[in-house]
Amino acid sequence: MASKTDLDPAIATRLKRTPDGLVAAIVREHDTGDVLMLGWMDDEALHRTLTTGRATYWSRSRQEYWVKGATSGHHQYVKSVALDCDGDALLVTVEQVGAACHTGEHTCFFTELPVTGVEQR
Amino acid sequence: MASKTDLDPAIATRLKRTPDGLVAAIVREHDTGDVLMLGWMDDEALHRTLTTGRATYWSRSRQEYWVKGATSGHHQYVKSVALDCDGDALLVTVEQVGAACHTGEHTCFFTELPVTGVEQR
Repeated sequence: MASKTDLDPAIATRLKRTPDGLVAAIVREHDTGDVLMLGWMDDEALHRTLTTGRATYWSRSRQEYWVKGATSGHHQYVKSVALDCDGDALLVTVEQVGAACHTGEHTCFFTELPVTGVEQR
Repeated sequence: MASKTDLDPAIATRLKRTPDGLVAAIVREHDTGDVLMLGWMDDEALHRTLTTGRATYWSRSRQEYWVKGATSGHHQYVKSVALDCDGDALLVTVEQVGAACHTGEHTCFFTELPVTGVEQR
């Protein structure tokens, strides 16, 4: 995580971060409303996302910033960013070029888990 | 976080957790596709969600489990749960009773942040 950032302090003060300094960024496709993926942003990644219009994340595995699409060509053009009520999550609405998932799937959420106890209202 | 859990080891082994042992749970409304909120689950919260059909989270602020709606009446009946490709996020599709946000808003993502650099493809 970068030690310095130009993120607006008025925004930074609202963030509630994980122990490693990150907020969860939910990525939603503008045209379809589909939930595509979840990325992680530190303050600087959020700053870059807001000021460049290109979705930028912090990679927990590689410990570096990445601009979505920089290597894959599967760019995410940012339409809007919303912060949630308690400051630990962002909803990033994007125009997605190509597949959002590195596996080539449209979204990263393609593994269904068994729900065995389905309660009806 | 609970030290013991009955979560299926085949699922547990796929999870990539935050330093405090949590995965992000994106909550989406079944009927509308709206992204309602983001909660956090440890292994046991996920186990309870899958086996009871009621969305159950770990509260980072209160350091305890909470069943959504237990005090508010704003229950979340789980329709499906999907794990993402790298195991650090869940997409929980629910039937939401009432407002998802504790503020009374339909979703928690009602604070728009300014996107100043909008790039066009």
